[in-house]
Amino acid sequence: MADRNTPFIFNEWYVAAFAADVGRELLARKLLGKNVVMFRTEQGRAVALDDRCAHRSFPLSEGTLDADTVVCGYHGFRYDADGDCVEVPSMKVCPAAIGVRAYPLVERGPLLWIWLGDPALVDPGAIRDTTFMESDAWVCSTGYLWLAGNYVGLHENLMDLTHLSYVHAKSFGTPEYAQAPYKAWLDEGHYKVTRSVIPTVLPPVWGDPSGLSEVATAARVATSEFLSPAFHQVGTSFYDSAVPEDVRTVCSIRTAHLPTPETHETTHYFIVHGRDFALADPGVTQVMHDRLLIAFREDVEALGRLERVLQETPADQLYEISVASDGPGVAMRRHLLRRALEEHNQTQA
Amino acid sequence: MADRNTPFIFNEWYVAAFAADVGRELLARKLLGKNVVMFRTEQGRAVALDDRCAHRSFPLSEGTLDADTVVCGYHGFRYDADGDCVEVPSMKVCPAAIGVRAYPLVERGPLLWIWLGDPALVDPGAIRDTTFMESDAWVCSTGYLWLAGNYVGLHENLMDLTHLSYVHAKSFGTPEYAQAPYKAWLDEGHYKVTRSVIPTVLPPVWGDPSGLSEVATAARVATSEFLSPAFHQVGTSFYDSAVPEDVRTVCSIRTAHLPTPETHETTHYFIVHGRDFALADPGVTQVMHDRLLIAFREDVEALGRLERVLQETPADQLYEISVASDGPGVAMRRHLLRRALEEHNQTQA
Amino acid sequence: MADRNTPFIFNEWYVAAFAADVGRELLARKLLGKNVVMFRTEQGRAVALDDRCAHRSFPLSEGTLDADTVVCGYHGFRYDADGDCVEVPSMKVCPAAIGVRAYPLVERGPLLWIWLGDPALVDPGAIRDTTFMESDAWVCSTGYLWLAGNYVGLHENLMDLTHLSYVHAKSFGTPEYAQAPYKAWLDEGHYKVTRSVIPTVLPPVWGDPSGLSEVATAARVATSEFLSPAFHQVGTSFYDSAVPEDVRTVCSIRTAHLPTPETHETTHYFIVHGRDFALADPGVTQVMHDRLLIAFREDVEALGRLERVLQETPADQLYEISVASDGPGVAMRRHLLRRALEEHNQTQA
Repeated sequence: MADRNTPFIFNEWYVAAFAADVGRELLARKLLGKNVVMFRTEQGRAVALDDRCAHRSFPLSEGTLDADTVVCGYHGFRYDADGDCVEVPSMKVCPAAIGVRAYPLVERGPLLWIWLGDPALVDPGAIRDTTFMESDAWVCSTGYLWLAGNYVGLHENLMDLTHLSYVHAKSFGTPEYAQAPYKAWLDEGHYKVTRSVIPTVLPPVWGDPSGLSEVATAARVATSEFLSPAFHQVGTSFYDSAVPEDVRTVCSIRTAHLPTPETHETTHYFIVHGRDFALADPGVTQVMHDRLLIAFREDVEALGRLERVLQETPADQLYEISVASDGPGVAMRRHLLRRALEEHNQTQA
Repeated sequence: MADRNTPFIFNEWYVAAFAADVGRELLARKLLGKNVVMFRTEQGRAVALDDRCAHRSFPLSEGTLDADTVVCGYHGFRYDADGDCVEVPSMKVCPAAIGVRAYPLVERGPLLWIWLGDPALVDPGAIRDTTFMESDAWVCSTGYLWLAGNYVGLHENLMDLTHLSYVHAKSFGTPEYAQAPYKAWLDEGHYKVTRSVIPTVLPPVWGDPSGLSEVATAARVATSEFLSPAFHQVGTSFYDSAVPEDVRTVCSIRTAHLPTPETHETTHYFIVHGRDFALADPGVTQVMHDRLLIAFREDVEALGRLERVLQETPADQLYEISVASDGPGVAMRRHLLRRALEEHNQTQA
Repeated sequence: MADRNTPFIFNEWYVAAFAADVGRELLARKLLGKNVVMFRTEQGRAVALDDRCAHRSFPLSEGTLDADTVVCGYHGFRYDADGDCVEVPSMKVCPAAIGVRAYPLVERGPLLWIWLGDPALVDPGAIRDTTFMESDAWVCSTGYLWLAGNYVGLHENLMDLTHLSYVHAKSFGTPEYAQAPYKAWLDEGHYKVTRSVIPTVLPPVWGDPSGLSEVATAARVATSEFLSPAFHQVGTSFYDSAVPEDVRTVCSIRTAHLPTPETHETTHYFIVHGRDFALADPGVTQVMHDRLLIAFREDVEALGRLERVLQETPADQLYEISVASDGPGVAMRRHLLRRALEEHNQTQA
């Protein structure tokens, strides 16, 4: 199954940045091992180019943005938003066919999705649905964490919520969580696990805003869904299980976990978190956001520790033992490996 | 002969920790490249386990100690003091045959000895004698230094005391030390050198507590003994050579130098230092300990500098020239190489 | 063409140090990947030895200088200024044929040139002319910068002055510089480019001391010359182009750029800067020196950024596109590659 030594999957849409973070300053970011520079044109279109001048490899992000062109800081080669070189200062006529690669960028609500793979396969229709992020029925907040670990570990972490009782014992994990019954749906490329903790007492992060904090018969039903190598969605519903289904109020939260490999050992971890209740209260947004980020930082710390163990373990001494609850994670990792190797073998061929 | 590129010798007892340093907190330490976690059971038995959960490699030392079990901080796998997994929270019945390796630990006075080698060869009888550390005839103190160098260099340093005049010129080396006559006994696996400096004036670290500081006819007879890859003992006797042998008072010090490789480039350097005179004076203990540690830090600094030279020297440019006084060190290093390769070849076969 | 992966050219004279920096203290420096220790004898002769004791590789620079000998800080081996071991403290008679390599050093004005290559090929006559540094017709100052990049990039930077308009936009670059006409002379091993900016307004660093700061018809004629892998000279003349040639005053500056590889990724960058006007004014020396160093630091920063891009780029993804103005730099890099490979292949054979 996939692990930190598995090749990247390039033929996929990944989050390159939050839309709000790309503007009229050159932004350098490493994505799947590639150095990319991003900016917006004067008309507001977000652009991503290879961050390396075709001439002598100087990073374009260290140059300047001039209208819709980037001027290299070394010898002044000028590139337009398509990556075509349009001026070489020492030449009266700019030589044709000099340029850097431009990567397709698609803006969807708070996210900028990038395609770093085979240009022949670009299809914005393959970007997963994130309309809830722009819907009036949800209030959302965004966060970013830098993870000192491979992205596969983050996916498995999200797929297997039995870790909540341990990694998040002090935030939103509760002891019975690891033992709760779960159902799994394991379709190729789409892995889904639902875990029901009923009855339970909600931790304050959920109990307070949902008004269920005093309820001993609360229900907490979490669904983890692997949607793509770049997108894992976790939704949780809360309600009072003592109230009949047809009259009960159900509060839902939904978190898009959006990992983009930076290197094989590090990951950009983009997060969009939404709720469909207490919509008018910005204080709730802030409190829930802050508490969630505390928990996600616990994951980031744990995965970073894990990465350090794996980094220093010789490949022939690496082993893992899986148990029943690892089933969905293992299926997901096999899928990642299959896709990675298929693509890798095609590229090599 | 053995050097920093020589494989480790696993089939040997090494000091894992001072007994006083292992208690009811999980203690992580890398020994011969292996990550080990140590603790004491409620009954006080010291335990050493592989510091990596069998499930997803999370370091057990980042988990919690619960009675005599260690609970992994990621998914809650629970291991007993034998390394057997006794609980997987997501499973009603714990699967059999999950576990991590437990390493034999033997407590002897201030030391905990660990066996990281072939379990079939464990024999506590092979641990070298250290009863002086617990004897009423000696007062001992302990120290630890972290050495940024391979352990072979430390053994050679201890075997060849001609370095005292240079590395320790400011602490307990004296100029005539390097030229002093010496005798060597070179039995396979046991290398011993006695070096006599007679007459001499003792440096203050020895002269003051032995009452020989004003004596111009002092004798200083040092014996370096390689006892095992993990144990080098240096004993020194001081007396007034002008006093006939049958009536003179002889003061002795003895230092157990206990190197345990951490990695090929770093070493845990455990030290137990004892004396058989001025037993009732704790002030002497403190002064001698402090002065000795100053000198041992000089070795650690010198060996660290040497390691940095060796690290950056391409293997095909490494060379050494040996002279007569290197004989015992060379014999010892040949022995280490022989043992290392024998064991290494058996493991590979 | 040569790049950061090209072997070093050892058969060449390189600047090891400024003469003023070598004295009666042991000076350690890495040159072309070799650790060298330098000092002056009591008579004042500069000496360079391998910085590694032949016995156990301890760095000699961590020992002591005693008259004209170096005493190793580990076991006291003593070496004379020819690198011959003249004393082993533990031996009554010093064994013959122990020694470390001594490297030829030649002192020329402010510079110490070293030969690290094949001893059979040493020829001080091959050291390039630097008599201007000691001439009464010039006032010179010296500077040193440590460059976190390969030396080939520095040579190309100096050969191609079109970068002045970009890298030095804030110091002595002016916008029209990159477009100025140039002439090139490309003889094997000697590459020369002259670039004329006429008319122009001089930047203050040149305009102020030459008295041409208010002149709109100033001329600035720069000549970049690759003289050896260790020596690149840039000379610039300033005058008022409105004054007839036979009566005009010409002010000249000349900078010797003297790169000595430290490693493949770092370079010692020695600089000697001179002028042939306003000779009596030390204030001018200081101001010009300070302003120049600001500009050279801009190069060092830019080349350091470039190096970081190249370091992390897999060899099979490295590419460069060259344009007409790169001609001299490309010719120079082909020359470096040819020499490096010739020498490398001979050494291997």
